[in-house]
Amino acid sequence: MKSIKVGLLGLGTVGTGVVRIVENHQEDLFGQVGSPIVIEKIVVQDRSKARNIAVDGDRMTEDVWEVINHPDIDVIVEVMGGVETTKTYILAALEQGKHIVTANKDLMALHGTEILEKAKEKGCDVLYEASVAGGIPIIRTLSEGFSSDRITKIMGIVNGTTNYILTKMSQEGAAYEDVLKEAQALGYAEADPTSDVEGLDAARKMTILATLGFHANVSLDDLAVKGISQVTKEEILYGKRLGYEVKLLGIAERQDDLISVSVQPTMVKKSHPLASVNGVFNAVYVYGEAVGETMFYGPGAGELPTATSVVADLVAVVKNMKLGVNGQRAQAPYKEKKLKTDEQIASKYFVLLHVADKAGVLAQITQVFAEYEVSLESVLQQPNPSNPSAEIIIVTHDASKANMNNVLKHFEGLEVIHQIKSVYRVEG
Amino acid sequence: MKSIKVGLLGLGTVGTGVVRIVENHQEDLFGQVGSPIVIEKIVVQDRSKARNIAVDGDRMTEDVWEVINHPDIDVIVEVMGGVETTKTYILAALEQGKHIVTANKDLMALHGTEILEKAKEKGCDVLYEASVAGGIPIIRTLSEGFSSDRITKIMGIVNGTTNYILTKMSQEGAAYEDVLKEAQALGYAEADPTSDVEGLDAARKMTILATLGFHANVSLDDLAVKGISQVTKEEILYGKRLGYEVKLLGIAERQDDLISVSVQPTMVKKSHPLASVNGVFNAVYVYGEAVGETMFYGPGAGELPTATSVVADLVAVVKNMKLGVNGQRAQAPYKEKKLKTDEQIASKYFVLLHVADKAGVLAQITQVFAEYEVSLESVLQQPNPSNPSAEIIIVTHDASKANMNNVLKHFEGLEVIHQIKSVYRVEG
Repeated sequence: MKSIKVGLLGLGTVGTGVVRIVENHQEDLFGQVGSPIVIEKIVVQDRSKARNIAVDGDRMTEDVWEVINHPDIDVIVEVMGGVETTKTYILAALEQGKHIVTANKDLMALHGTEILEKAKEKGCDVLYEASVAGGIPIIRTLSEGFSSDRITKIMGIVNGTTNYILTKMSQEGAAYEDVLKEAQALGYAEADPTSDVEGLDAARKMTILATLGFHANVSLDDLAVKGISQVTKEEILYGKRLGYEVKLLGIAERQDDLISVSVQPTMVKKSHPLASVNGVFNAVYVYGEAVGETMFYGPGAGELPTATSVVADLVAVVKNMKLGVNGQRAQAPYKEKKLKTDEQIASKYFVLLHVADKAGVLAQITQVFAEYEVSLESVLQQPNPSNPSAEIIIVTHDASKANMNNVLKHFEGLEVIHQIKSVYRVEG
Repeated sequence: MKSIKVGLLGLGTVGTGVVRIVENHQEDLFGQVGSPIVIEKIVVQDRSKARNIAVDGDRMTEDVWEVINHPDIDVIVEVMGGVETTKTYILAALEQGKHIVTANKDLMALHGTEILEKAKEKGCDVLYEASVAGGIPIIRTLSEGFSSDRITKIMGIVNGTTNYILTKMSQEGAAYEDVLKEAQALGYAEADPTSDVEGLDAARKMTILATLGFHANVSLDDLAVKGISQVTKEEILYGKRLGYEVKLLGIAERQDDLISVSVQPTMVKKSHPLASVNGVFNAVYVYGEAVGETMFYGPGAGELPTATSVVADLVAVVKNMKLGVNGQRAQAPYKEKKLKTDEQIASKYFVLLHVADKAGVLAQITQVFAEYEVSLESVLQQPNPSNPSAEIIIVTHDASKANMNNVLKHFEGLEVIHQIKSVYRVEG
């Protein structure tokens, strides 16, 4: 029986997990696809490096082209990361008719359309389940499970590092900087955490989810992105008092054909299923017109969870090979992308102000909201023990982003407002 | 362009939802499959009955064979329910080469193997996503999303009626009978609620999930099943005090090749994601060796959620038709079924005893646990205001079902134990 031969690009965390699963689950994988699956060649940067896994030296190569040009290799599994160079490799492999499984969110968010078009042209599969939310099969869920529905909202906790930090800040009342250091020591955050904490990683994943969920070609530039580096423990505490948890949410919304996608720290009502997703776990909440509320929860990263998704894609590629239908299941976006303007983006807001502690201030502030047609759900005023300002926390009803920006701009010119301390989107 | 013609068996709640989605989402469905999907004929019991949906009288028929034998119909969507007669229809339709989409858990739990074998023989698809957990695409998740992993545990809240009742009992301290009546008035429970409240509905769904997750032919007879009709508000209250919520859980477990499947009211630790699944919502928790903890949450029933899954299956069938690969993706169970004995089934237990309120009783009771090698995690003794017994609540560490049964049998012969009030499995 002919075995299916795989070329693995990269033997880092996820690559190691892929080797482990393919080798340890041989019997089960055979049960699934009816052929042995063999990792024929592995591209590494340094063959002499010590590894967490025993791999025969002959199987490793430092020459990526040896694998891409290998005549016996059917499928390339790309878990090396990187964007421009990696794209060159992937396109070259597709050119040679090899199928691709990738865990590379950066590549798919930035060049997914081009890669998928090339794949279609060459009759090849490009599967990328592992690129979003690690072990959660959310890409299959959006593209197959909900193929019958019109999805109107996707909200994701899709970055484990920031969710770990926010969870710790919430549970322990700790400061951002302290928890970040701890997360770095535990390996949950990178030495340079920028991509995670500033929301870029989440933005790339949301680009992929929005494209799939809304059938329109969403690109990274379409997203408004804000990270968690300015979130304070006080804000989290105030949120909790009002019944909210702060989460870094990716939010993709559609109304008729108008869409908006953003990433920002968000006050999530405690009764919402996303509010209790803690630690490094990920979750994606999907609202469909017909299905209603659903949520998919699991590990967002890690060697074996991410490799589970990679190998599930590998199984799908092999099944397609056996049926001769590779490259024919991918769904190109068939809708024109129309973005909402700031006038059309609506949400509730949580606003924390430091104001002069004197009569008439609250009336003046609420008057500004009224002027820009932002109605208020709740208002909490309290003395601020640490300085002579009073604190006012306001939660609005649904307001347009444009109106809210006008309110904030107006506030900047008001003498009684000492500081606009925080502005959060509110969900749930 | 040739349209895909569907015969719909049944125009009840789910059937109505299917008609609505297929008609309202024509454009989106076309985007998915590249052909119009048309519901050509609908089988109803009574054509003259008033409907919630406008359907042209010509499309309705009371003769199921007219649809099964209709030469232009490609796919039969079965949402009429029933088992034996329905099986006859499905097998006859397969015999004629028609693909099947069904929401019928009873049919699939009892005759799934036979139906899937016939489908394979005839090169037809039989898809049944809607048969378990309504709008949650859990069947796809198990069979495709986790195809690479070895699933070791599936725990499901797969019956919305009982979850609604238990949630209300927990949140309002209400009695079972009162909440059941309310659920019946709201249409959440049937006039004869037996199948739901005694766990049979959940058992059928767990049979399907265990078969898929463990690749072995689990049958309904293999399950130990207990419902919620004996659950009291006092037990729920005591559970809450110790940090548990009572949920009707289907639990399918695998260790090496040994499996066990059961349905029972279970004390679920509040920190477990299943504990906060409330009301009529369903959720399925899946633990895989590689992926770890995951959970899938959504509406378990209802017109449009269930129809979402039915129509997603219909989309999958049509895509397979276009590729000419119908009947080739289903995975027959490839593992021999080996059931755990009571000695091999292990779990924690919650035991509530009414005992004589005198010295030495607790010592006598804990001695019995020790004798059968059941070790204890926590013991709580309190006076019982309503009668002369004292109450003892014991939570054990993992114990075998056989040992636990021996303990309970021994208790029955002890004079100091007035009543074994409740025994719950504990999870989380």
